[in-house]
Amino acid sequence: MTKITALLEQMTLEEKIFQLMQLTPNFLSEDDANLTGPLAWMGVTESMVNNVGSVLSAVGAKETIALQKKYMENSRLGIPLLLMADIIHGYRTIFPVTLAIASTWDMELAERSAAIAAKESAVTGIHVTFAPMVDLVRDPRWGRVMESTGEDPFLNSEYARAFVRGFQGDDLAGDMDRVAACVKHFAAYGAAEGGRDYNTVNMSERQLRESYLPAYKAALDEGCEMVMTAFNTVDGIPATGNKWLMRNLLRDEWGFDGMLISDWGAVSEMIPHGVAADGAEAAQKAIEAGVDMEMMTSNYANHLKELVEAGKVDITLIDECVLRVLKLKDKLGLFENPYRAASEEREKEVLLCDEHRAAAREIAAKSCVLLKNEQVLPLRSGQKLALIGPFAESGDILGPWSIWGKQDEAVQLHAGLSARTDLIATAKGCDIDSGSEEQLQEAINAAADADIIVLALGESSEMSGEAGSRGDIRLPQSQLKLIQKLKLLGKPIVVVLFNGRPLDLHGVIEEADALLEAWFPGTEGGNAIADVLFGDVNPSGRLTMSFPYSVGQVPVYYNNYNTGRPLTPQNANERYVSKYLDMPNAPLLPFGYGLSYTSFSYGEVSLSTDELHAEDTLEVSVEVTNTGVVAGGEVVQLYVRDIAGEVVRPLKELKGFRKLQLQPGETEKVTFLITEEQLRYYHTDLQLKSDAGEFHVFVGPNSRDLEAKPFRLVK
Amino acid sequence: MTKITALLEQMTLEEKIFQLMQLTPNFLSEDDANLTGPLAWMGVTESMVNNVGSVLSAVGAKETIALQKKYMENSRLGIPLLLMADIIHGYRTIFPVTLAIASTWDMELAERSAAIAAKESAVTGIHVTFAPMVDLVRDPRWGRVMESTGEDPFLNSEYARAFVRGFQGDDLAGDMDRVAACVKHFAAYGAAEGGRDYNTVNMSERQLRESYLPAYKAALDEGCEMVMTAFNTVDGIPATGNKWLMRNLLRDEWGFDGMLISDWGAVSEMIPHGVAADGAEAAQKAIEAGVDMEMMTSNYANHLKELVEAGKVDITLIDECVLRVLKLKDKLGLFENPYRAASEEREKEVLLCDEHRAAAREIAAKSCVLLKNEQVLPLRSGQKLALIGPFAESGDILGPWSIWGKQDEAVQLHAGLSARTDLIATAKGCDIDSGSEEQLQEAINAAADADIIVLALGESSEMSGEAGSRGDIRLPQSQLKLIQKLKLLGKPIVVVLFNGRPLDLHGVIEEADALLEAWFPGTEGGNAIADVLFGDVNPSGRLTMSFPYSVGQVPVYYNNYNTGRPLTPQNANERYVSKYLDMPNAPLLPFGYGLSYTSFSYGEVSLSTDELHAEDTLEVSVEVTNTGVVAGGEVVQLYVRDIAGEVVRPLKELKGFRKLQLQPGETEKVTFLITEEQLRYYHTDLQLKSDAGEFHVFVGPNSRDLEAKPFRLVK
Repeated sequence: MTKITALLEQMTLEEKIFQLMQLTPNFLSEDDANLTGPLAWMGVTESMVNNVGSVLSAVGAKETIALQKKYMENSRLGIPLLLMADIIHGYRTIFPVTLAIASTWDMELAERSAAIAAKESAVTGIHVTFAPMVDLVRDPRWGRVMESTGEDPFLNSEYARAFVRGFQGDDLAGDMDRVAACVKHFAAYGAAEGGRDYNTVNMSERQLRESYLPAYKAALDEGCEMVMTAFNTVDGIPATGNKWLMRNLLRDEWGFDGMLISDWGAVSEMIPHGVAADGAEAAQKAIEAGVDMEMMTSNYANHLKELVEAGKVDITLIDECVLRVLKLKDKLGLFENPYRAASEEREKEVLLCDEHRAAAREIAAKSCVLLKNEQVLPLRSGQKLALIGPFAESGDILGPWSIWGKQDEAVQLHAGLSARTDLIATAKGCDIDSGSEEQLQEAINAAADADIIVLALGESSEMSGEAGSRGDIRLPQSQLKLIQKLKLLGKPIVVVLFNGRPLDLHGVIEEADALLEAWFPGTEGGNAIADVLFGDVNPSGRLTMSFPYSVGQVPVYYNNYNTGRPLTPQNANERYVSKYLDMPNAPLLPFGYGLSYTSFSYGEVSLSTDELHAEDTLEVSVEVTNTGVVAGGEVVQLYVRDIAGEVVRPLKELKGFRKLQLQPGETEKVTFLITEEQLRYYHTDLQLKSDAGEFHVFVGPNSRDLEAKPFRLVK
Repeated sequence: MTKITALLEQMTLEEKIFQLMQLTPNFLSEDDANLTGPLAWMGVTESMVNNVGSVLSAVGAKETIALQKKYMENSRLGIPLLLMADIIHGYRTIFPVTLAIASTWDMELAERSAAIAAKESAVTGIHVTFAPMVDLVRDPRWGRVMESTGEDPFLNSEYARAFVRGFQGDDLAGDMDRVAACVKHFAAYGAAEGGRDYNTVNMSERQLRESYLPAYKAALDEGCEMVMTAFNTVDGIPATGNKWLMRNLLRDEWGFDGMLISDWGAVSEMIPHGVAADGAEAAQKAIEAGVDMEMMTSNYANHLKELVEAGKVDITLIDECVLRVLKLKDKLGLFENPYRAASEEREKEVLLCDEHRAAAREIAAKSCVLLKNEQVLPLRSGQKLALIGPFAESGDILGPWSIWGKQDEAVQLHAGLSARTDLIATAKGCDIDSGSEEQLQEAINAAADADIIVLALGESSEMSGEAGSRGDIRLPQSQLKLIQKLKLLGKPIVVVLFNGRPLDLHGVIEEADALLEAWFPGTEGGNAIADVLFGDVNPSGRLTMSFPYSVGQVPVYYNNYNTGRPLTPQNANERYVSKYLDMPNAPLLPFGYGLSYTSFSYGEVSLSTDELHAEDTLEVSVEVTNTGVVAGGEVVQLYVRDIAGEVVRPLKELKGFRKLQLQPGETEKVTFLITEEQLRYYHTDLQLKSDAGEFHVFVGPNSRDLEAKPFRLVK
């Protein structure tokens, strides 16, 4: 740290402040139009540009090397630029969207996808990725659910760790093919009211700690280098200016001493939020809250100097921020080699190489969730297939946040299926959100001679992702009409769904004979889906977010509370219970759900004891058998319920899972360990502790179909 | 208090405990079946019955007098029974549901409705009503929105006060025609997640104080004698066992020393909620939280004695509760006259008397909200009217919570219209939630010779009210189909809506030429609606809850926050703003909205100063003119926005309103006063204070169509 501290001492106040700014590369170009355009508009000066601490979204080895070279030439003190970008689910080789990867319940695959994304982006010159996004989500209207791993704090935490390991490896300083991770969005961005992006978040601190914070904490425990603020408010204060959240909790309580960056423009957004009258107040609130670097607005650059001079901001605050920025640059080895792994030559070797394509194909296939199968799948050779639907020949299968992926490098479903069989016909049937009688007729004609219709439906990638909120979560009417018309032909229909959120599947699931949730599967989508449809890969994906019965039920999630008047099979016809008159309380498809081409049977759940003493371990065992005729994967899930707590406890909380791979007839015994620590929760005093008393443990294939066993915690 | 204290000293522990119990009258009957049925099941003994503190839902002077007489004969110490009931919007004369009364924006009418309800129930022997319900609501899926006054804390507080004044008068002890009020449901019951009744409530304490608590506090400030707990959790703890809520906040901070009663069975419900392992723990938590009386379960009666004897509950806690019960009995004069106003003779005079019917008619007419009118209304004599729809001849117009009202005493729409004109035909068209081709054809035939179709649609009363949650808030398909078919006739259609919640009106509002929201209008509904349709009463009701564009937008309410990326007319085509891709952010019809048969114009809003000093008053004036040809009522509304606060502030907050009655051509100047006190809000330290700086004040006819003026608060 001596080098860094010495450097800090040489820096002018302005140089320090500019280190805390992040801009897009166009600001650094010498385009005259730019100097009178955005630069002037944002009050960005040449001096700022020459001393800016970081650039985002500069990619490609050629560009990043040139950028860094020129920058270093201008840098008085030889401080390199830090280059960051949104590498969310792949750089050039695009993996399935995060919600799809989550469906694998496979941490090794998640880690591998991040490691490959890190390598591909590292060789282009990127140092930091704005990932993982670990926001817990319960509202499928929100477009960014595709970027999350779902509705469970435990599972989200496991994925948070896996992605951080994948991006950063275990030697970030030494391993040039890794990038620093930046966990986001701190905090609770996933709870945007009404599922409307950027909207207000409202919850108690206890709820925040219980459900929303664990995944961020897990990422940091895994060594995640950076944190990004959220756009939303947390109890009335925008996260980016929330001193309690950032300074008291993140910095002081959790001891996070890495770099904290605002989300895009979020410092300025304190003004429309209504907690800052102007840019100076916004800058002051952000730096007081602990934000080290401001992304894409210039409030720090324009106001921190005057704030320091006016005595409103202490210079030590600024020094702290600068030190964190310099520290990360140093940790990444940029002072020694500002280009790090950037290499045009290695780009050619690494990007979209066979190994990466193979990984993308494997992960995409394992991300698929089979939601229905009336003995139609797997397809058999010799069957005459017609491929119909707006996704039949669409390259829009990369999903949101695949900026540097290329649709023309993606394997469309048509190509994937054609590699295995001669499709007898292909037709679009309708567009994503519109259609004509002519298109319908074409589809009907295409299906005329088919044995089976493969129908590729879904949402365009613009319909989810950032700012992609939908109030109606059904498929568009044009597609519902298409399936209705095709249904009249009386042929088996296999629906393949491309989408970024849990949908209300009414109008699809009843009509389909088989339904495969393929999400946005990425570059190798078509091949991966063909692998699954033809049975080379037996689907083993499991939902990590409930699929609602209807948007009118939202939020619906498995780990909810019992209420004082729970609906039960016994009282379902009584009025005064907590229910809807016109729809079930339960989602259409529960958390943890997914089918296979084989079947599994569960033996009786056995407990090593029915009294767990605080210092002991409870073993929960079950034998699982593949009772079908093909090999397959099963995700054995363990849930716990605390029957009476100081505060109400979820009906079920995931506490463990095991992914098995079983041959036909094979049995495996799974043993989970439960300790007192796993039974702790946040009490009203915000302390994490457990209660003696009765608990239920549940084991089964999803959050709905479980066998329960009671035990007592004795303290 | 000496008398009461002396009495307490004579009571045995059991007598004390039984005073804290409330049962239904059937428990007090001598029916043998009962002794082996519910009594045995609940562990209720004869001794409990003879000493029970209160009975709920015993009504009718004959029954209550007999009950009290028999009880007093058995009472060792001559302690009278306290009789309570749910008198929500009328006893025998049923007024419109509360959400409808709220639409009058008329505190005198609200007070009058409560005073009449009090009188009618008092003469039947009731001492306490479980009203007003003042829960703030933002989710129309919740069935109990019909029982609330809407989504605004200020307006809800005004109504809370008005209803308390109406029930209690200003001399509860001396005025036998009044009843004690019991404000409910403490607290935040209206925020049930997903609009599903009894469901979890989750918000920060600051949000609770800002939005949800003010109306309860207002009721108590007005002298409300009792408080009822809520079924829901408040930050993880059921309200009924929530010590922070009841003891720290309600008792200590607010100084409430009246009686606190649990909601029906809510003490026992702590067990399914999962915060009590058994009845003993539930009883302990409830009494520690400050609940004086347990409604309809016997945990206090069965367990308090053992809890006292085991040293788990201090006897002083029980004495406190008993004192509060005795004090209320004393305040109501029951020790002197246990029958209070109960009188079979006065029942005959008072119940449903002409004066009460007239009041019900006036209030129902003024509750109607005209939502659309394409120059069809008012109806003119000589027009040939066909009355169609499932509410054409339905008596189900009293709405939920009208237990002692009688449908056969209600004036149906058919009767109300027939009193003014000879309807040329009447047909049902469909049932509420089903229909046949035959019914449709009948309706079409009925309309054949009509000039205008009056179409009475809506929800049955079971579709709202307690446990009446709906996930789909459109009218049922059968009714949407009916209006579609009738529309094909090309005749003007006047829709009259009977319902208990804001609906998604798509499929109705486009088809209707005029749309009158009549809610559940009560006993005089048919007459009141006829008054409005024929123009004898010019509609002046205004919505107090937003009507959503779709359930996919819920929660949608006017006093929301700006976010960091607000949707504006200028950025509506940009992606990265807080919006839905497929529907507007705004509701279909905003808070405060309602039309008239005349029109009003607003002059320019003028401010007495643009700098409000903390100790001064800002005058906001506007001239409002009736620019039409008939007299009419207008609700002039005043809103304020704090541009930059410590925490985010609502885009608009109602701070005042004035209901004007203007003759054609008449102008009235309205002046609102704004003081620093009105600009205070809960800061992060939970203190109520204001911020110096910029504010906007808005004046206009509803929360959407407003003129804004800036001013500064100087401190």
